[in-house]
Amino acid sequence: MLFKKHQQVLDAALAACSARHYWSPFIESPSRQLHPKDAHANGKAAFEALLQKPFSLDQPAEIGRTGHEVSPYTQRPLGIDYPKIDVDSAMQASSDARLSWQQVSPEERVGLCFEMAFALEKQCFTNAYATMHTAGQAFLMAYSGSGPNALDRGVEALTYAHKAMADVPNRALWSKTFGRAGEVTLEKSYRLVPRGTAVVVCCATFPMWNAYPAIFANLATGNPVIVKPHPNGILPVALAVRCIRKILADHDYDPNLLIMAADTRDQPITLALLQHPDTAIIDYTGSQEFGLWIEKNCADKLVYTETAGCNGVVIQSTDNLDGMIDGLANALCGFSAQMCTSPQNIHFPLSGIDSDQGRIHFADFEQLLATAINSRVDNPVRAAALCGAIQADESLAILARLRSDPCVDVILDSGPYQHPEFPEARTATPLVLAVDAEHHALYSREHFAPVCFLIKEQDAEAALNNATQLARQHGAIASYLYSTDPVYKVRAENAFADAGASLWCNMTVPMPINFAAAYSDYHITGLNPAGNACLADLAFVANRFRIIQFRQPL
Amino acid sequence: MLFKKHQQVLDAALAACSARHYWSPFIESPSRQLHPKDAHANGKAAFEALLQKPFSLDQPAEIGRTGHEVSPYTQRPLGIDYPKIDVDSAMQASSDARLSWQQVSPEERVGLCFEMAFALEKQCFTNAYATMHTAGQAFLMAYSGSGPNALDRGVEALTYAHKAMADVPNRALWSKTFGRAGEVTLEKSYRLVPRGTAVVVCCATFPMWNAYPAIFANLATGNPVIVKPHPNGILPVALAVRCIRKILADHDYDPNLLIMAADTRDQPITLALLQHPDTAIIDYTGSQEFGLWIEKNCADKLVYTETAGCNGVVIQSTDNLDGMIDGLANALCGFSAQMCTSPQNIHFPLSGIDSDQGRIHFADFEQLLATAINSRVDNPVRAAALCGAIQADESLAILARLRSDPCVDVILDSGPYQHPEFPEARTATPLVLAVDAEHHALYSREHFAPVCFLIKEQDAEAALNNATQLARQHGAIASYLYSTDPVYKVRAENAFADAGASLWCNMTVPMPINFAAAYSDYHITGLNPAGNACLADLAFVANRFRIIQFRQPL
Repeated sequence: MLFKKHQQVLDAALAACSARHYWSPFIESPSRQLHPKDAHANGKAAFEALLQKPFSLDQPAEIGRTGHEVSPYTQRPLGIDYPKIDVDSAMQASSDARLSWQQVSPEERVGLCFEMAFALEKQCFTNAYATMHTAGQAFLMAYSGSGPNALDRGVEALTYAHKAMADVPNRALWSKTFGRAGEVTLEKSYRLVPRGTAVVVCCATFPMWNAYPAIFANLATGNPVIVKPHPNGILPVALAVRCIRKILADHDYDPNLLIMAADTRDQPITLALLQHPDTAIIDYTGSQEFGLWIEKNCADKLVYTETAGCNGVVIQSTDNLDGMIDGLANALCGFSAQMCTSPQNIHFPLSGIDSDQGRIHFADFEQLLATAINSRVDNPVRAAALCGAIQADESLAILARLRSDPCVDVILDSGPYQHPEFPEARTATPLVLAVDAEHHALYSREHFAPVCFLIKEQDAEAALNNATQLARQHGAIASYLYSTDPVYKVRAENAFADAGASLWCNMTVPMPINFAAAYSDYHITGLNPAGNACLADLAFVANRFRIIQFRQPL
Repeated sequence: MLFKKHQQVLDAALAACSARHYWSPFIESPSRQLHPKDAHANGKAAFEALLQKPFSLDQPAEIGRTGHEVSPYTQRPLGIDYPKIDVDSAMQASSDARLSWQQVSPEERVGLCFEMAFALEKQCFTNAYATMHTAGQAFLMAYSGSGPNALDRGVEALTYAHKAMADVPNRALWSKTFGRAGEVTLEKSYRLVPRGTAVVVCCATFPMWNAYPAIFANLATGNPVIVKPHPNGILPVALAVRCIRKILADHDYDPNLLIMAADTRDQPITLALLQHPDTAIIDYTGSQEFGLWIEKNCADKLVYTETAGCNGVVIQSTDNLDGMIDGLANALCGFSAQMCTSPQNIHFPLSGIDSDQGRIHFADFEQLLATAINSRVDNPVRAAALCGAIQADESLAILARLRSDPCVDVILDSGPYQHPEFPEARTATPLVLAVDAEHHALYSREHFAPVCFLIKEQDAEAALNNATQLARQHGAIASYLYSTDPVYKVRAENAFADAGASLWCNMTVPMPINFAAAYSDYHITGLNPAGNACLADLAFVANRFRIIQFRQPL
């Protein structure tokens, strides 16, 4: 039984979710020493073998072929096509698959999801290249971000699903005395029933990081899944779907528990999926605007969203100036700030800050940050490893527009860097803009591009007020504080909490400051406009199934 | 510390929720032997002292007086008025109260809620009379239904709230090695943050049974509550609000964590409360129509509903004919079928059923049921104890309309019974109608009145199909099956589960067949139109709070 097979891993995951310490059952690094000798080369070859041909995915409801992905590294089409599905037929196949799946015990479903997770780990190298050439991530990030780190978030959600389901017993005996008539004993049984088909909408830049949690949470609780990849992020999803469908079939379960619904920008099918009467659950990752629309207009479905905010950094003081600057520079360069935790708005007091290197004024800070960024992007090898490529042309247009905005001073201009391996890569170094605090309209939303605003605040209080107000009104997924003042720190922690935002304080190198750890960092508070779902808490899973009871006298 | 004080009770409640056995920390019976000598007399006197005068409730935002309750037993006004509130001001007071309350530890909030529950138990006799003279329940039901049974459901919800909150640790240490740079250790803290003001809308017939779970679930998770009683069910709620506000104040907490928003039918304020921008959570008990409207139109709030369905009884066979007939007769008479678990549609095969007394045909069943009901309502003392009074005039109008419907045969007519204590009581004995199965329109919705339909089904299969289809399309809170055939029972259990309905099988006297037990019977599946909330599971509580995190290097 698969539950028994993975029970030790589950127990360790349960312990990690309780203690929220570091833990992973996966190999996080692609380092040669940690993998079979040819794993990397084979994975890469497997990816290359996929190019310029139809992707073989045996699933129902196919009515043609679709897909038009362009590699951010070559800016040429991958040349892969995928099944185009008929939505109604796919929905029917999904509903049909539920009928047998909901009869499978919750424990066995959980065990099978673990089996899937470890099978998916085996194709991490292939998926890393697929993610590179669709999202634009550098190899190392693509490896972890679509591999172990994404699987960790998936196992985390799976663990919470197990916890919520295990909270309901299978049976009970209930005895009660009714007056003189005497004792009555009832035997009761409780079955966990899924809600119905879940539609999982993936984003372009981190195709699997939110997809695995949603897929595992849904499958474990008995709900079949139709996964809708981003039009330029199909391949990583397709690889995962093919792997999971194989695991299902190998264990004699209906592979239609997971169906991929690919589309193109020109012929989108997302709305047809979301609004389909059979859709019971929606897991959405993407823009804040569309996420809020779904929350409002799909009230008859259970809706989980992770979208975007304008992540702020409040700088009040530091006892590690170099570490702070390096940490920020890394985060601004990292995947060209296309991460949902990338900082965007740096609130810095015009009055300057105290540091371990003396008083630092706004102009000092500008130059230190610009220098730190330059030292990273001036070296093409380092730039490539850190920045990767730009996922979409729109980001370049954003940079062009912002650079020439009359309200900004360009502290560090953005330009392409020459990728050492892919001369045609769509690249852009960080654009650093100084702006007066009053120009709210400019920075009060996410600009999905490598850009940061150095916002001139009157003082640390104004910085805190502005940053928390932005989090409250426009959302925040990660917020940052640098301060050595215990009183200010507590005030900031409370102010961000009041704004519905979590706060990461004094994060410096060597850790990537915006790294969010499965089993430990709750991702998304649900208390600001950046989404309503949390990776992972009980609320993420407890409502995906319902309880139906049978009772009769013993 | 109040948490410590009540920890043993909490532990017992946690055990009961896990094993789902019978348990209660409250005295379920009003029997003299179980209470202080004068408890009953004092409680009754306290109720009578409330009549014909203003109800003293010291709460903010009062802009006048309101309330017009009529006793179903005297059909005269209670003559009590209550604070009329300004919605905006009450909302503001509620939001203000949250600021300090959310700083209180979850454990202390849970402890204080237990303190409230035991304080509320002390006024059970007074509240029983208040419930009698607003809802129309007989004394015994009013005692348990607004007292121990309601408090049990409240403590159950409170226990789940504790469980969900205890799942999140206060702090964590997280250590991870980042390449050659070495190990980084972060200390993390997690705070549980309430969503905001919860509006709890109560129903007329069981004012506290759903109110206590909602109030305790919200208060425990940090959310202040504005409770909106039914216009004819204010007094039971007012008594509870006054008691809870006193407990809060006695322990130096802001009493505005619970505010009552009374209104009248002529000047309703429910919509203003539900649609207020500060309202974050809605707990609604009432009609299915309005419940579905809220689910659809208040998508920006967290919505929990318990409404109504057309509860069905499928009769295929029985080995205890007398017990079944008596059980059904009790349930049809009990509080004049004004309970959310009262059966309404009895599906009986025209081909008859097997029983321990031989073959029973439709005509036999009609007569047996009519006789059993008559034996209960012919005796005014027994009728009064069992049926109580009719809450609203509308129910009498429903009876008048149905009795003269051309599609029905009146098997047993409804009429007033003479209440031995209250000669003016609004009473009605059960109306029993026989109807052909084809007349769906007649019985495919809840008729809120003492009426049942004996539906002539071709056979047991047709009965099952019809009953499950009704549950699926029109909702069901309790469904009943009588069968001695193990194969048919399994099929029925699965068919009802497929329709999203729980099933109670072969329930006979001495137990009231429609009794739903806290800590054991999950109430409402959320999979059919009779509501989306479940008393009580993790989904009922886990999303009422959110998690905000602070992290920094150790």
